[in-house]
Amino acid sequence: MARQMKKQVRKLGLPPGALVHTGQRKVEHVHIESIRYTDSVCDALRPPSLTPDLLADPAAGVAWLNIDGLHDVGVIETIGQRFDLHPLVLEDILHTDQRAKVELDDRYIYAVLQMLRPENDYIQSEQISLILTDRWVLTFQEAPGDVFDPIRDRIRQNKGRIRKLGPDYLFYTLLDALVDSYFLTLEKIGDRIEALQEEVARNPDPDFLNLIHHLKRETLFIRRAIWPVRELVNNLLREDDSPLITPATRTFLKDVYDHIVQIVDIVETYREMTAGLLDIYLTGISNRMNAVMKVLTIIATIFIPLTFIAGVYGMNFQHMPELSWRWGYPAVWIVMGVAAIIMLILFKRKRWL
Amino acid sequence: MARQMKKQVRKLGLPPGALVHTGQRKVEHVHIESIRYTDSVCDALRPPSLTPDLLADPAAGVAWLNIDGLHDVGVIETIGQRFDLHPLVLEDILHTDQRAKVELDDRYIYAVLQMLRPENDYIQSEQISLILTDRWVLTFQEAPGDVFDPIRDRIRQNKGRIRKLGPDYLFYTLLDALVDSYFLTLEKIGDRIEALQEEVARNPDPDFLNLIHHLKRETLFIRRAIWPVRELVNNLLREDDSPLITPATRTFLKDVYDHIVQIVDIVETYREMTAGLLDIYLTGISNRMNAVMKVLTIIATIFIPLTFIAGVYGMNFQHMPELSWRWGYPAVWIVMGVAAIIMLILFKRKRWL
Amino acid sequence: MARQMKKQVRKLGLPPGALVHTGQRKVEHVHIESIRYTDSVCDALRPPSLTPDLLADPAAGVAWLNIDGLHDVGVIETIGQRFDLHPLVLEDILHTDQRAKVELDDRYIYAVLQMLRPENDYIQSEQISLILTDRWVLTFQEAPGDVFDPIRDRIRQNKGRIRKLGPDYLFYTLLDALVDSYFLTLEKIGDRIEALQEEVARNPDPDFLNLIHHLKRETLFIRRAIWPVRELVNNLLREDDSPLITPATRTFLKDVYDHIVQIVDIVETYREMTAGLLDIYLTGISNRMNAVMKVLTIIATIFIPLTFIAGVYGMNFQHMPELSWRWGYPAVWIVMGVAAIIMLILFKRKRWL
Amino acid sequence: MARQMKKQVRKLGLPPGALVHTGQRKVEHVHIESIRYTDSVCDALRPPSLTPDLLADPAAGVAWLNIDGLHDVGVIETIGQRFDLHPLVLEDILHTDQRAKVELDDRYIYAVLQMLRPENDYIQSEQISLILTDRWVLTFQEAPGDVFDPIRDRIRQNKGRIRKLGPDYLFYTLLDALVDSYFLTLEKIGDRIEALQEEVARNPDPDFLNLIHHLKRETLFIRRAIWPVRELVNNLLREDDSPLITPATRTFLKDVYDHIVQIVDIVETYREMTAGLLDIYLTGISNRMNAVMKVLTIIATIFIPLTFIAGVYGMNFQHMPELSWRWGYPAVWIVMGVAAIIMLILFKRKRWL
Amino acid sequence: MARQMKKQVRKLGLPPGALVHTGQRKVEHVHIESIRYTDSVCDALRPPSLTPDLLADPAAGVAWLNIDGLHDVGVIETIGQRFDLHPLVLEDILHTDQRAKVELDDRYIYAVLQMLRPENDYIQSEQISLILTDRWVLTFQEAPGDVFDPIRDRIRQNKGRIRKLGPDYLFYTLLDALVDSYFLTLEKIGDRIEALQEEVARNPDPDFLNLIHHLKRETLFIRRAIWPVRELVNNLLREDDSPLITPATRTFLKDVYDHIVQIVDIVETYREMTAGLLDIYLTGISNRMNAVMKVLTIIATIFIPLTFIAGVYGMNFQHMPELSWRWGYPAVWIVMGVAAIIMLILFKRKRWL
Repeated sequence: MARQMKKQVRKLGLPPGALVHTGQRKVEHVHIESIRYTDSVCDALRPPSLTPDLLADPAAGVAWLNIDGLHDVGVIETIGQRFDLHPLVLEDILHTDQRAKVELDDRYIYAVLQMLRPENDYIQSEQISLILTDRWVLTFQEAPGDVFDPIRDRIRQNKGRIRKLGPDYLFYTLLDALVDSYFLTLEKIGDRIEALQEEVARNPDPDFLNLIHHLKRETLFIRRAIWPVRELVNNLLREDDSPLITPATRTFLKDVYDHIVQIVDIVETYREMTAGLLDIYLTGISNRMNAVMKVLTIIATIFIPLTFIAGVYGMNFQHMPELSWRWGYPAVWIVMGVAAIIMLILFKRKRWL
Repeated sequence: MARQMKKQVRKLGLPPGALVHTGQRKVEHVHIESIRYTDSVCDALRPPSLTPDLLADPAAGVAWLNIDGLHDVGVIETIGQRFDLHPLVLEDILHTDQRAKVELDDRYIYAVLQMLRPENDYIQSEQISLILTDRWVLTFQEAPGDVFDPIRDRIRQNKGRIRKLGPDYLFYTLLDALVDSYFLTLEKIGDRIEALQEEVARNPDPDFLNLIHHLKRETLFIRRAIWPVRELVNNLLREDDSPLITPATRTFLKDVYDHIVQIVDIVETYREMTAGLLDIYLTGISNRMNAVMKVLTIIATIFIPLTFIAGVYGMNFQHMPELSWRWGYPAVWIVMGVAAIIMLILFKRKRWL
Repeated sequence: MARQMKKQVRKLGLPPGALVHTGQRKVEHVHIESIRYTDSVCDALRPPSLTPDLLADPAAGVAWLNIDGLHDVGVIETIGQRFDLHPLVLEDILHTDQRAKVELDDRYIYAVLQMLRPENDYIQSEQISLILTDRWVLTFQEAPGDVFDPIRDRIRQNKGRIRKLGPDYLFYTLLDALVDSYFLTLEKIGDRIEALQEEVARNPDPDFLNLIHHLKRETLFIRRAIWPVRELVNNLLREDDSPLITPATRTFLKDVYDHIVQIVDIVETYREMTAGLLDIYLTGISNRMNAVMKVLTIIATIFIPLTFIAGVYGMNFQHMPELSWRWGYPAVWIVMGVAAIIMLILFKRKRWL
Repeated sequence: MARQMKKQVRKLGLPPGALVHTGQRKVEHVHIESIRYTDSVCDALRPPSLTPDLLADPAAGVAWLNIDGLHDVGVIETIGQRFDLHPLVLEDILHTDQRAKVELDDRYIYAVLQMLRPENDYIQSEQISLILTDRWVLTFQEAPGDVFDPIRDRIRQNKGRIRKLGPDYLFYTLLDALVDSYFLTLEKIGDRIEALQEEVARNPDPDFLNLIHHLKRETLFIRRAIWPVRELVNNLLREDDSPLITPATRTFLKDVYDHIVQIVDIVETYREMTAGLLDIYLTGISNRMNAVMKVLTIIATIFIPLTFIAGVYGMNFQHMPELSWRWGYPAVWIVMGVAAIIMLILFKRKRWL
Repeated sequence: MARQMKKQVRKLGLPPGALVHTGQRKVEHVHIESIRYTDSVCDALRPPSLTPDLLADPAAGVAWLNIDGLHDVGVIETIGQRFDLHPLVLEDILHTDQRAKVELDDRYIYAVLQMLRPENDYIQSEQISLILTDRWVLTFQEAPGDVFDPIRDRIRQNKGRIRKLGPDYLFYTLLDALVDSYFLTLEKIGDRIEALQEEVARNPDPDFLNLIHHLKRETLFIRRAIWPVRELVNNLLREDDSPLITPATRTFLKDVYDHIVQIVDIVETYREMTAGLLDIYLTGISNRMNAVMKVLTIIATIFIPLTFIAGVYGMNFQHMPELSWRWGYPAVWIVMGVAAIIMLILFKRKRWL
C-alpha cells in the first residue's frame, strides 16, 4: 500500500520535529470541541477558533479538547506550547499513518492509533492521537466523525461512572471505543469472506480473483493497523508506576488488552481464511477443468474410432467385398453401436461418468 | 467465524461493565443448582429461584453454585454483589465467546473457557465461567447439560477424595473435566479426518472439498478455543502465592497443564493433517486427470493417423492406382494394423499403458 | 493418530489419580525383573510375583526393578505405596501414550518417554517410565523386549564404570539407551525417504502417494514423541539442586542433551524431506503429463490438416478439376508430405521434440 | 546475491584486522570534506588531501569529517591512528557489504549500515560507516553522492537546532537521513509492485515472471539490509549509559527506531505482496488455459459427432437406403443442426459458455 | 542425509565414553604436526609418532599440536590422559559428524565444528575439534588438508601480531579461518543457484529438477552444519569469566560472531532462493504446457469445422443439389477460407496468438 508511503516521502529532507501536516487534507476547516465536566456539571462547546480560555486548566474535573482536522499547523503548535509537548509528539500528530504506539512522559501520555471504518469495500483509516495529562484529555483527528458519540452522550447524560472519574478513565473509554470499533470493521470483512467462501465454492468465476486479492490486501492492511495496538495497550499496562493512570483504570485497561488480543486472533483467522479462499478458488477451477476434460475425452474417444470405421467404408477401392454385402450397412451400424456401448461401460467402470 | 462477532457487536456503544447478555438465549428459564458438602454431609438442591440462604456462607466444607442460563441479568447481578465481583468479571460472564483467560483477585479467581461438544458435524461451544473463593465455587453456563455429571456423582457418593478437600480441589476437578472433554471432541474430529484420508485417496470426489474445508474451519475453531486455555492453566500455576489454591491442588493443576499441552499438540497435528487432506485431494484430482489425458492421447494418437489413411483412399482422384489393385483393400488394413501395433508398443515402452 | 486418543477417552469420567490401565494389553503376564548390584556383587532375579523382599532397600549399591506389562494395577499400586509415589505419577505410568516429561520430587525423579521401534513399516511406540530414588531405579514398560540388554550385560559382566557408580548413573544410562534407540528408528525412516526420493523422481507412480503420506504421518508421529524429550532432558539439567543426581552424572546428561538436539535436527530435516517428496512426485506427474500432451499435440497437429486435405478430395462435386488431373493424386501426397515436414521442423525449433 | 560474497572472499587468508579494501572501487579519487561548526560559525572545506590540521580537535562545537571513496587505505589508516580506532573497526569500514551493526566503545560509537538507492530497476547499496566521538562525527562512504545534502544545507544556513547541539545530534541526524532514505527506496518498489499487480491480473504474460522474480530478489535484498538496522538502533537505545549520547538525542533516536520498525513492517508487507504476485500470475495462467481448453472442448465436442454422421453417409455400401431418399440430404442437415443445438444448450446449462 | 546416522549407529550399545572412531577412515596414517612459537622463536615439526617430549609443556609461548586422522584411538587416548580431558570430550573427537558445540571446563575449552569444502558438486564436511588450554591449542582433523595454511605461514614468517599473543589468539585465528571458509563454500553454492535461476527460467528442462533438489539438500546440509556454530561462538562470548580467553581476544571473537551471523543470513537467503528455483521451474513448465495447448487448440479448432464441411460434401446422397452446381467446389473453398480467417481473427482478439 503505497498510500502510506507517499505522505511520508513529502516530509523527507526536513529537520526532525518540523511541523508539516503530511496527510491528505480531509476537512475544510479545523473543528474544535471542548467538553469539561465534573460529577455535577458538564460544559460542551464547539468554538470557531482556539481561544486562550479554552486552554485554561479546569478548576475541577476533566477537560476534553477534541480537534478535527490537522492541516492548521498553528492550532497544533499552540496546543503543543500550552502543554509543553515534545516536538516529536507534535510531528507524530501531524504526520498521519503512524504505526500505533504510546509515549510515556512524566507529565503526559501520548497514544496514537488508527480508527478503521469500512467505506465502499475499502477500509478507511483515520489517525487518532490521544494525550492524557493529569487534568486533560486531548484528541486529534483527521476529520470530523468518529466512534466517540456514545461517550459524549454518556458524559452529557451522566450515564455510568464516567462523570465521577478522572481523565484517565475518559482516556480509557476513548481507547476502548476505538478498539471496539475494530470489531465492527472485522465483522464486515468476516461477512464478506464467509459469503465469498460459499459463492466461490459454488462457482469459481475469475472475477472473484480480484475480490479475493482485494480482501487479502484489506486484511493485511487491518493487520498492520491492529498488531501494534496490542503492544500499545501492553506498554500502558506495564508502565505501572505512571501517576497518570489509577489502579482502577488499569484494571479496565486489562479488559481492553483482552479485547485487542481477541481482535488479533480474529485477524489471524481471517488471514488464514482469505488464504484458504484462493485454495477454494483454485481447486474449483481445477475441478471444472477436470469436468471439461472428461467430456472432451468421452466424446472424442467414442467418436474417433467410429469415424475411423466410417472412413474405412468411405474408401474407393474397387475390391471391397463388404460394400456389396446385402447387410453390410446395417452390420456397420451394429458394430459401431456395440463399440460405443463397450466404451461407455468402460468409462462407467473407471468412474469417469 | 462471524458468529462470535455478532454478539460482540450488539454490545458496542454501551459503557464498559454494562451488564447485557450478548449471547444467544439457549434456555427458557435460568436453572439454579446448589451443592454443599463436607466430608460427612452432602446437600444438593435445584431451587426455582435465587434465595438469600442459597448465598449464605457454608458453616463448613464447600458450596458449589451452578447457574445454567445467562439471560437473567438480575441473577448474575445479585451474585456479583454478594461476592463483590468486579463489574468487568460480570460483563465477561454475560458476554459469551470470551477468549479463555483467568483473572486473579485477592478474594477470588475467575476463569472462563469454552466447553466444546460435537453436534451434527459442528463443534458447539458453550462458555463456562468458574469462580473460586475461599469457600465457594461458582459456575455459570449458557445452558443446562455439561460434562460435570461424573463429578456430581463423585460428590454425592463420596467417591475419591473430593469430599475431603476444599473448594480449590473442586475447582481443579471442574477444570480437569472441561479439559478432558476436549479429548472427546478431538477424537471425533480425528476419526473424521482419518476416515476422509482414506476415502479421499481412493476417490477424490469434489464433494469432499466442502467436507475438507469444513474440517479445516472446525479445527481452526477448536484451536482458537483451546490455545488460550494453556495460557490460562499456566497463569494459574505461575501465581503460586495465591492463598486460594493449596500446594496439593497445584500439583494436580500441573497434571491439567500436561493434558492441555498434549491437546494443543494433537490440535496442531490435526491442523497439519487437514492441510494434508487438501494435498491428497488435489494430487488425487491431478492423478485422475492424468489418467483421463492418457486415454484420450492413446485413442487419439492411434486413430488419427488411421483415419487419415482411410481418408486418403476415400479421395475421388481418377488416377489412384492403389484403388484398382486386387489386394489394395486388405493391404490398407494390414498397414493400419501394423501402425496401430507399433504405436501401442511405443506407448508401452514409455510406460503410458 | 486417533490411537492415542482412544485410550485417553476410556478413562474420562474417572476421578483424577484413579488407577486404570488405559493402553492396549500387550502381554499375558506381568514380568518382574530385579537386578541389585554393588561394585563387587551382582544379583539378577526374574521372580514370578512381587514379594516384599524384592522391595526391601538394598544394603549397599543400586537396586533396579523392571516391570514389563502394566495391566496388573495391583503391582503398580504396591510399588506406589512402597515408594510413596504421588497418585498422579501412578496414573501417568498406567496411562500410556503420555507426552514425555519429567517430574522432580524431593524424594524421587519420575521420567516418562516413548521407546520407538520400527515394525513392518510402522513405528511402534512403547511407554517407558523411569523412577530414580536415592537407592533405586524403577522402570515400567508395556511389554517385554527393550533396548536395555547391553546395559544388563554391562552390569552382569562389570564392564565400564556402571557397577562403581550410583543409581543416578544407571538412570542416565537407561535414558541414553532410549535416546540412542531413536537414531536407529530415524535411520530406518531416513533410508526409506532416500530410497523413495530416487524412485519417485524416476517413476512418479500414484502408488507412491500412499507411501509418502505414510512416511509423513510416521515422521509427524516420531516428532511428537521426540520433541518433548528435549524438554525432559533440559529440565533434568536445569534442576541442578536435586541431590539425586551427582555433578558427574549431570555432565553425562549434557551429552544426552546434545544427542537429543541432534535427533530433533534430523527429525526436522526428515520432515522437510518428506514434504519435498510430495513436490518431487507432483513435478514428476506434471512432467509426465507434459510429455503426454506434447505427443498428442504433435500427432494431432500433423494429421488434422492432412486429414482435412484428404477430406477435400473425398468430396463428390461434379466439377473438381484436380480430380481428373493426371498427377493430381501424387501431387496431393507431395503437398501433404511437405506440410508434415514443415510442421515437424517448426516443432523442432520450438523445442517440443 | 553472490556479489556480497566475492568481495569477502578476496580477503580470506589475510590476518584479521588487515586493511584491504574489499569492495568495488567506485570512485577515482578519495574526496575529503570537512565541516566544522559552532552555533555562530560554520566552516566547510573540500581539501585535496588529508592534512594534519584537518584532524586537529575543534576548539568548540562539532567537527564532521566525511570521506568519499575507500580504496586509499592510507587515509583510513591515518584516521584510525588519530582517533585510536580498533583495527577491526578499520577493517569493517573497508570491508564493504557489512551487515548493519553498532560497536560501542568507551571513546567512540561505530555504526555501519547500507544506504539504498534505486538505480535502473536495481537497488544499489553503498556502505556508510559513522563514527561518533565526543567532538567528532566521521563518515565513510564508498562514493560521492549521498542523502546528507539537506543536512549540509541546514548546517550552513543554521536552520533548525542543529548548530546549537553537539555531535551526537549530528550523528542522529545522519542516521535519520539514512533511515528516511529507505522510505524512498521502498516507495519505488511499492509502486512497481502495485503496477504489476494490476497488469499481471489483466494479462499474465510470461515476461512478467522475470520481473516478479526480480522484485522478489530486490525485496529480499532490501530486507537483508534493513532488518539489522533495527537491531542497530535498538542497541544504541539500550546502551543508555554511554556518555556520548545525551538523553535529549536519545529521545530522537527513539523516533528513528519507530521509523525503522515501520519500514520493517512495510518490507514484510512487500514480501507478502511479491509472493502474492506469483499467485496472481499463476492463477491468471490457469484461468487462460481453462478458457483455451473450453473452446477446444466445445468446438471438438460439437463437430466430432457431426463429422461422424457425415462420414457415415460417405460410406460406399451398395445398400444404403437413406442415400436414395428424396429428402435424405436435408434430413441429415436437420439431424446435425439439432444435435449441435442440443449440445450448445447442454454446455450453456453447465455454464461452459 | 543418512550418512551421519550410520556412523552413529555403529557405536550404539557401547558404554558412554567408549573410545571408538565412528567416522570413515579418511587417511592411511595419523599425521602429527607440532608448532611451538614465542615472539622470537618458531619450531615446526612433523614427527612420525607421538613422543612424550611433544606433549611437554612449552617453556614459554604457545604450543599447537595438530592431529590429522582419527582412527588411531591410542594417540587420542594418550593426549586425553596428558591433558586430563573428560572421556566424553574424547568420545566427541572420535565420533565424527558432531553438531557444532563448545564445552567450557575450568582447565580447557573444547570446540567442535565442521569444516566444509565443495568437492565435485558435493559439500564435503570434515570434523575439526579444537582444544584450548592455558598454553596449548590442540586440533584434531579427520584427514590432512585444511584451511589453516595461511595461519601456519603467518606464524612461520611472524606476520601480524600472532607470534606476540597467547594461545587464545591462535584459537580465535583457527576458528576465524574455519568460519571464513564457509564463505567460500557458500559462494560456490550461490554461483550455482544464480546460474540455475537464469537457465531454468530460459529452458525448464526436467533434468534441472535433480539439480534443484540436490542444491536444496546441500543447502539444508550446510544449514545444519552452520546454524549451531552461531550458538558455539555466542556461548564463547557469553562465558566472559573464563580465564583462558583474554578480553582482547574476546573483541576479535565478536567479529567472528558478526561473520557467522552474516553467513547464517546468506544461508537463509539461499534456502529461499532454492525454494524459488522450484517455483521458477514449475511456472516454466506450466508456461510451456500452456503454449503447447494453445497450438493444439488453434490447429484443432480451425481444421475440425473445415474437415466437417469436407465430410458433408463427401456424402453419397443421390440428391445433393450443391454437388452438381458449376461453382460448388470453389464456393466450398471460399466458405472454408472465410471460416478459417474468422477464427484466426477471433483468436487474435482473445490474444491467443
